[in-house]
Amino acid sequence: MSLDAVLARIDDTLPEAMERLFGLMRIPSISTDPAYREDCAKAADWLAKDLESLGFDASARKTPGHPMVVGHAGGAGKHLLFYGHYDVQPVDPLSQWKTPPFEPAIEDTPNGKVIRGRGSSDDKGQLMTFIEACRAWKAVHGTLPGKITVFLEGEEESGSPSLIPFMHENAGELTAEIALICDTSMVSPGVPSIAGQLRGMLKDEFTLHGPKIDLHSGHYGGPGLNPLREIAKIVASFHDPETGRVAVEGFYDGVHEVPPALLEQWNNTGFDEKDYLTSVGYTVPHGEQGYSTLEQQWSRPTLEINGLWGGYQGAGSKTVIPAEAHCKITCRLVGDMDPDDLREKIRAHVAARLPVDARVTWDSDLEGSPAAVMNTDRPEFAAAKRALSDEWDREAVIVGMGGSIPIAGFFKEILGMDAMLIGFANDDDAIHSPNEKYDVKSFHKGIRSWARILAALNE
Amino acid sequence: MSLDAVLARIDDTLPEAMERLFGLMRIPSISTDPAYREDCAKAADWLAKDLESLGFDASARKTPGHPMVVGHAGGAGKHLLFYGHYDVQPVDPLSQWKTPPFEPAIEDTPNGKVIRGRGSSDDKGQLMTFIEACRAWKAVHGTLPGKITVFLEGEEESGSPSLIPFMHENAGELTAEIALICDTSMVSPGVPSIAGQLRGMLKDEFTLHGPKIDLHSGHYGGPGLNPLREIAKIVASFHDPETGRVAVEGFYDGVHEVPPALLEQWNNTGFDEKDYLTSVGYTVPHGEQGYSTLEQQWSRPTLEINGLWGGYQGAGSKTVIPAEAHCKITCRLVGDMDPDDLREKIRAHVAARLPVDARVTWDSDLEGSPAAVMNTDRPEFAAAKRALSDEWDREAVIVGMGGSIPIAGFFKEILGMDAMLIGFANDDDAIHSPNEKYDVKSFHKGIRSWARILAALNE
Repeated sequence: MSLDAVLARIDDTLPEAMERLFGLMRIPSISTDPAYREDCAKAADWLAKDLESLGFDASARKTPGHPMVVGHAGGAGKHLLFYGHYDVQPVDPLSQWKTPPFEPAIEDTPNGKVIRGRGSSDDKGQLMTFIEACRAWKAVHGTLPGKITVFLEGEEESGSPSLIPFMHENAGELTAEIALICDTSMVSPGVPSIAGQLRGMLKDEFTLHGPKIDLHSGHYGGPGLNPLREIAKIVASFHDPETGRVAVEGFYDGVHEVPPALLEQWNNTGFDEKDYLTSVGYTVPHGEQGYSTLEQQWSRPTLEINGLWGGYQGAGSKTVIPAEAHCKITCRLVGDMDPDDLREKIRAHVAARLPVDARVTWDSDLEGSPAAVMNTDRPEFAAAKRALSDEWDREAVIVGMGGSIPIAGFFKEILGMDAMLIGFANDDDAIHSPNEKYDVKSFHKGIRSWARILAALNE
Repeated sequence: MSLDAVLARIDDTLPEAMERLFGLMRIPSISTDPAYREDCAKAADWLAKDLESLGFDASARKTPGHPMVVGHAGGAGKHLLFYGHYDVQPVDPLSQWKTPPFEPAIEDTPNGKVIRGRGSSDDKGQLMTFIEACRAWKAVHGTLPGKITVFLEGEEESGSPSLIPFMHENAGELTAEIALICDTSMVSPGVPSIAGQLRGMLKDEFTLHGPKIDLHSGHYGGPGLNPLREIAKIVASFHDPETGRVAVEGFYDGVHEVPPALLEQWNNTGFDEKDYLTSVGYTVPHGEQGYSTLEQQWSRPTLEINGLWGGYQGAGSKTVIPAEAHCKITCRLVGDMDPDDLREKIRAHVAARLPVDARVTWDSDLEGSPAAVMNTDRPEFAAAKRALSDEWDREAVIVGMGGSIPIAGFFKEILGMDAMLIGFANDDDAIHSPNEKYDVKSFHKGIRSWARILAALNE
C-alpha cells in the first residue's frame, strides 16, 4: 500500500483538517470544573461521530465522570491502541489571553504559523494528528493498515478518576500489541522524540486553620496567630534554601541517579538550555544544585506549590487576620518513589511544623501515580524511530519527560501493554497557560509522522 | 435642663431608634469596592436628611471619593465636634454569614440581645448612639446642649483619601473645642473606656513576578523559579520565629516602652486575657515574647499579612507554576514610628531577599498614619469619665487601643483639636468579619452615655 499517496493526500487536505480541529477546540471541555460537564460530553460525542465517519465502530461510553470514547477499525495485521485526551485545562487568568481561548484561529508569528487556543496543543491538536492520518489512509486505500483501537479520555487534566475502573472493565477490547500515546513534546523544535521515561505525580492540598473566625488586625494584630504567616513558614520549609533540595524527610527514597550512557544521549538531543530558560524569563535553572536543566526536568523529583491563598484579595485594603489559609501541592516523582508513602511523609512534615492553636486539614480526594519507565528495546521503537527520522530529516531520539502521563504506567500494569509516547508539541506551546498554541508545522508533520509510523509498524 | 427626662425618653423610644439604625444598615456602603459607590452616596444622603430632621443645618458634601456629611446645630455653649463613619468593610467570605450581612436583625444570644449585620458595630451602630442622644435631647428640650457639629466620613475603611484635603478646605467650620469620636471598644464588657492612645497604620502591597507566563509544572517543575515559593520565603522572613519580633531592620525605631504607672492602670481594667484569647480559638498570645496580650495589642507594633495569593484556587488541581504571587501587608505603629520611613525599610527587606529572575512591584496608592497619643489631662476627660461612670455603675478607665483611627491624629495636626475616643463596642463584635454584631445593651447605654456626656461637658 502506497505511503506517498497518503502523504500527498495529507498535504492537499490540510485546511480541512484544521477546520475539523477548530470544531473540536470550540467545545470548552474543561474537565476539572463541574460547570463544563456537558461540554465534555459534547466533545466526546463529536469525536465518536468523527471516528464513525472513518469506519470505526465507535461510541462515547458513560463513566461516573466524563465519557470515554472507544473505537475499533480494521481486522487483520498488527493491533495498535491509540490514546489521547479530549479534555483541557482551565483558562484562568482569562485576562491574559490575547484571543478568546475557545475561539481557535491561525496566527502568523516570527516562528511560523500557529493554531491559537486552549487545547490546540494539549491534547486536541495532538490527538487529531493521529485521527487525520487515519482519515487520509482510509481515503487513499479504502481501509486502515492493521487493526486500530482508538481510546480517548476526558479526565486527563483532572486526575483520571474513571480511568482505572474503565480499563479493568474493558480490558479485553482495550488490550493491543502496543499502545501509541500522543500527548508529549519534542525535545527541541524539529527533533522527533519518543519518551522513554515519565515522571509520576502526587497531588495534595491542605488548609491551615487558626482563629475560629476572621479577626480584625487592630484587635488581634499582635497576640493573634495569623494563618497566612504560618502557612508561609511551612511552604518555605519545604525546600533547603541553599541546595534547592526538597527538605521533607525521606523525600528522595527511591530516586536513582541517571546512568551515564543515558545522560550522554540526553546531552545530544539538541536541547537548547539557554533558550528553554530565557524564553520564559529565566537566566539560570532554579532547581537542585548539581543537576542540569534537563536532569532537573526529567530525572529529579519536585515538590511544587500550585496555589497558595488566604485573606483579602480584592481592591484596596482589609485589616483582617483570616481564619484559614490554603495550599495546593503537586510532586513530580521519579524512579521507584511511592506516592502513598510520600503523601504520608509530606503530611508528617507539615504536622511537625504546626504551631500551637493551629490545625491542618487535608483534601482526601487527590490521587498519585508512580513514574513510568518504558521498554525501549522492543522492535516497535526502532520502527517508529525510523519513520520519524524519515519525516523530520533528523535522527529521532529517546528522551525523558518532565510531565506525568499516568496512562503509560496503567497500560503496563493493567493491560500488560508497553507504550510509545510520541508527540509533536513544542516547549513554547504554553500548555496549561494563557495563549496556548500548536505550530501548524507540528500539526501537519505530526499527521504525516503517524501515517509513516502506521506503515512502518505494519511492514 | 433635665437629664432624667432625656434618659427616660431614650428608654421609651429604643425600638424606633433601632428601626432607624436598621434603615442605615440596609445600605451596603462598602467604601473600598467601587461597585458600591452609589450605596455610599445613599448612606450619606440618609444621614444628612436624618440630621436635618433634628434641626441640624446638614448636607452631604461631594469629594473626589465618597461624600462627607457635615451638620451644625445650636449656638451658645461649648462647641463640640462629633465624628463617625458611615462606610463599612467588605463582607467576604459571604458563605460564612449566618444571616445576610445587609439584612439587620435582632437576635437572642446567651449574652443578651444583639443587632446582627455589617456595620452594626463598626461604625453605623456606634455613630447612631450619638445621633439618637441628640434626638432625645431635642425632643425633650426643643434644642441641643451647646453647639454641635457632626462630621461623618464615608472612606474610613478604605484609607480616607479625601479626608485631609477636606479638613484643610473646611477647617473653619470643623474646628471645635474638642472632638468626640465613637469608633472604639470597651476594654471589657460593661467597663466604659476612653482611649488615650491608638496605634498608627501603614498599608502596603506587593506582587512578586517570576516567569513571563504561567508555566506547566511538568515542563518547568524543577528548573523553574516558583513565585509562590519565593513569596512564602519572604513572608516567613518578616518575623523572628523564636521571639515573634518583626525581623525588618530598624522596624522598632521610635518604639517606646510603656511607663510602669500606665502599665499598672492597664492591668486594672478588668480585661480578661484568657477569655479574649479563647473566645476566638487561641490558648496563648502569639505576639512578641515578654509582653502581655494587652501590651502586644496596645503598645507594640506589628507587621501583619492580610492577604496572600497566587496560582490556582479553583476546584481540583492545576499543575501550574504561576507567573506571579501577591501579598497585602498592614503594620500597626506605635510611639514615634514614621510610616514613610518604615515603608522604605520593609521594601528594602523584600528587595534584599529577591532571588535572581524574580522582581517585585509595589502598589503605590496605599497610605500610612502615625500613632496618636491624646492629652488626657484636659478637664473634658474628667467630665466624660464621670458621666460614663454614672451610666455604667463602674469607674471609667483610660485605655490604649490596638486599632488605628487616623482621624484623631489629623484633628490634632490639622485643626489643633484634641479628641476623646469613646465607644461601646465589644471585642466579640466580629467587626471586619462575618456575622458582625452590636449588643443592644451597647446601643441603648451608648445613647444614654452620650446624653450624660453632653450634659457634663456643658455644665
